[in-house]
Amino acid sequence: MRSSMGTAFRIANRGVAVAAEPVWSVDPRTGKPREQVAVEATAEEVDRAVRGAHAARGALADRAARAAFLRTAADLLDASGEHVVEAADAETALGPVRLTGELARTTAQLRAFADVVEDGWFLDVRIDLPDPGATPPRPDMRRWKIPLGVVAVYAAGNFPLAFSVPGGDTASALAAGCPVVIKAHPDHPATSELCASLLRRAAVKTGLPEDVAVLVHGFDAGVELVRHPLVAAAGFTGSIRGGRALFDAAVTRPVPIPFHGELGSLNPVVVTEAAAAERAEEIGAGLAGSMTLGAGQFCTKPGFVLAPRGEGGDRFLDALTAAVSETEPAVMLDRRMRDAFVAGVAERAALAGVHTPVTPGAGGAHTVSAGVLAVDAAALADGGHHLLLEECFGPVTVVARYSTREEVTAVLGLLPGNLTATLHIAEDAAEDADAAPLLAELTPLAGRVLVNGWPTGVAVAPAQHHGGPYPATTSTSTSVGATAIERWLRPVTYQSTPDHLLPPELRDGNPLGVPRR
Amino acid sequence: MRSSMGTAFRIANRGVAVAAEPVWSVDPRTGKPREQVAVEATAEEVDRAVRGAHAARGALADRAARAAFLRTAADLLDASGEHVVEAADAETALGPVRLTGELARTTAQLRAFADVVEDGWFLDVRIDLPDPGATPPRPDMRRWKIPLGVVAVYAAGNFPLAFSVPGGDTASALAAGCPVVIKAHPDHPATSELCASLLRRAAVKTGLPEDVAVLVHGFDAGVELVRHPLVAAAGFTGSIRGGRALFDAAVTRPVPIPFHGELGSLNPVVVTEAAAAERAEEIGAGLAGSMTLGAGQFCTKPGFVLAPRGEGGDRFLDALTAAVSETEPAVMLDRRMRDAFVAGVAERAALAGVHTPVTPGAGGAHTVSAGVLAVDAAALADGGHHLLLEECFGPVTVVARYSTREEVTAVLGLLPGNLTATLHIAEDAAEDADAAPLLAELTPLAGRVLVNGWPTGVAVAPAQHHGGPYPATTSTSTSVGATAIERWLRPVTYQSTPDHLLPPELRDGNPLGVPRR
Repeated sequence: MRSSMGTAFRIANRGVAVAAEPVWSVDPRTGKPREQVAVEATAEEVDRAVRGAHAARGALADRAARAAFLRTAADLLDASGEHVVEAADAETALGPVRLTGELARTTAQLRAFADVVEDGWFLDVRIDLPDPGATPPRPDMRRWKIPLGVVAVYAAGNFPLAFSVPGGDTASALAAGCPVVIKAHPDHPATSELCASLLRRAAVKTGLPEDVAVLVHGFDAGVELVRHPLVAAAGFTGSIRGGRALFDAAVTRPVPIPFHGELGSLNPVVVTEAAAAERAEEIGAGLAGSMTLGAGQFCTKPGFVLAPRGEGGDRFLDALTAAVSETEPAVMLDRRMRDAFVAGVAERAALAGVHTPVTPGAGGAHTVSAGVLAVDAAALADGGHHLLLEECFGPVTVVARYSTREEVTAVLGLLPGNLTATLHIAEDAAEDADAAPLLAELTPLAGRVLVNGWPTGVAVAPAQHHGGPYPATTSTSTSVGATAIERWLRPVTYQSTPDHLLPPELRDGNPLGVPRR
Repeated sequence: MRSSMGTAFRIANRGVAVAAEPVWSVDPRTGKPREQVAVEATAEEVDRAVRGAHAARGALADRAARAAFLRTAADLLDASGEHVVEAADAETALGPVRLTGELARTTAQLRAFADVVEDGWFLDVRIDLPDPGATPPRPDMRRWKIPLGVVAVYAAGNFPLAFSVPGGDTASALAAGCPVVIKAHPDHPATSELCASLLRRAAVKTGLPEDVAVLVHGFDAGVELVRHPLVAAAGFTGSIRGGRALFDAAVTRPVPIPFHGELGSLNPVVVTEAAAAERAEEIGAGLAGSMTLGAGQFCTKPGFVLAPRGEGGDRFLDALTAAVSETEPAVMLDRRMRDAFVAGVAERAALAGVHTPVTPGAGGAHTVSAGVLAVDAAALADGGHHLLLEECFGPVTVVARYSTREEVTAVLGLLPGNLTATLHIAEDAAEDADAAPLLAELTPLAGRVLVNGWPTGVAVAPAQHHGGPYPATTSTSTSVGATAIERWLRPVTYQSTPDHLLPPELRDGNPLGVPRR
């Protein structure tokens, strides 16, 4: 059975089979297919991919090899940078400037995780020497963390590099010692194939089996993957609907597995009276820049703003309106997203009491126009405007005008979990009486709280946290920063184990010099 | 609606209502009811309990108050130690010696978590100072961990103190700053009420609202609890069936919550040829002690043993048989468990090829007799003996005799996840060629791997890990030791936030002196 399907797959790759579903690379600027890149993986092929990755896990046990592999992958991506950026731009229309920056971020991430692997803090080594005099006597116990096993990575569409095949989930899982099977995002299959081939070449160059990173295509393949008994954990970045379906599959398995999904975020912003009075124009222009950046396709796009009624708030809205009106129509990542945006903003604009200072919607045949919706904050609490509190992927934001602090509190109480929450207060924070209570109200809503800044742009740094209450993420972990590695590990304690049988990291004398507690 | 149900509850408490389900304390030594302790909570009462706990969460924000509360709770439990032990013994038959030890462990845990709260490492503070020269410029970011909110604690039956109302889940959740609603175990409701009243008194004594810890009774109340929108996480210790049902409820909520459940564990033991040749009698007697301890009702009871065929293995089995035969009949925690044990061992003993060196089963009218089942390791791989690889709660173990290392590997490949795995090797480990490969095979199966010891007895220590692959636990965390607190926290990063608006733990100059990275 397996071999006949394998034959069908190989034939399909030559374009003569009937059963295999083709995977096309499409130009979002024209909607035209560019080339057939691959075929969707069958259940048998997913099984083979997972088994291949699982068989390769032993080779990843050597931390030095892992670190070398991650650095080599970064080097190969940099060396092929022009091709990678060209492929990604052709499929995503994100532009060479943004993509060149994203590639730099991606290779920096890979190298940062190589450092994490080497420094060894993530192993969380804790050693309790025996205490025979304690009641009860305490045995020798040595704990560290070990990799969970094969990780399924579901690539994001909006970051074809940094959150896709060579992105953060892949880098952190490999750093943890977990082989990855990556489900390619359908919006950039050619970029995915190119990056996967570089990852696999890096593996071979560092003496690892190339199956430490395997790529599969296809929606059904993604579902098969999360259900596979040898898959031990999953990382996902995408929509609430798709992410929740995979989360449900992960947790209803006979043996449930951790599913670290980033599903969606409204990223609320609150502008205080004092902030609006002080710098309405600056905040309006800043918001316009943040919400239209990358055609509003960032997971941290500020999609909902509480701004005061009155003169300061009016100036803010005027500045926002002016800046957004000047935005050029933009190409979204794919036709489906563009159509969903056009339909989504129309549905929202049609709600009672919703105004459109700048009407968002279709631009040209393949583009969208950014826009701003406005509504009374008081109207949101009545229940008929729930849609305004759901993420709308693309260049639109909702401005809810409030008259009182009570209205702000009531609306914040309706919000789902978020990656970020942003507060704009007076420059002299001590002069803004709303600052402290609003910061306290925003903290339970998000994983990152910003003051007088914009949430787009997620620094890769030790104190970063990219995650938040559901649906922002399905776990309490982060997908950005060094601690992202913790998602793919579990502790094991060795009790009363002879020294030479212990992993070197746990032995007396600490021969590898790993940090310990 | 709420108030009328509340009235019904109050009436029920005076013994005159018809609707409320009574909760009885039962003496397992006689099977006779001792007293009606409470009534089962209705959905409305669960709602009120959760809302009360939720309203109390702000009071737990002060770490000094939390630490004082945990220490006061420990002091009050110690001061009422005699009553607590008496109540627990009357309901569980675990005996005053064991229960006195368990109380000491429980209060030590509470005090240890007070230390954890004060030392501040659990806050995992990470500070990145701004770097305007970086590309892109890096903002000021300060991360720490905050409590998730109300935690539902499902008390265990087999540890009426240390894993019940004042146990590890409660202590770690309160230490994290999370109020708890505790679902009492039906086997010791009077002990639960007594301990809950002491926790609440401790809260009041330290100036906290008593609703930081609320107790509810009843199976349905437990299901309501995990579904309540204001419950943010759950901790559970119990059976696979009950735990999986609650896990399923937790993860299928509109907003899924973390469910840290410890569901069951076989705790395999492998005895090498060399170990059996060297100390067959010592290992046999040690196993008998470990598997019959507390009537075999420890979650770490060694329930499955791979022992060699041949002379050494025969001597091991003889020693085990002799020691188990001398064990007195024991009272189990409740009638249902006793009946399940009697039925479970009978079903296993009836399987083809299963021998009973010591026949387990009913003892007197209210007791059970410990026993040993034996089978060919080769027979296990054929699929008809799956039941032997499932935990049987109570004083029984299964000895599978192997002829070759390949048989050991094949059987280990059939095992589910475990809390512990134990390896008995030659005292001079360097002389035992099986030691290293078997240790490598056992590590993926368990959260704690022991050499030449017994898994019962779980030291409370920093390097402890009490958890393991599913079904041992439903997450990668531990329920014993300081890191148990991590289950109830999530990270939050503050970006570019004025110093005086930050929590003191994150401010410049570190006024509270918390550890930082």
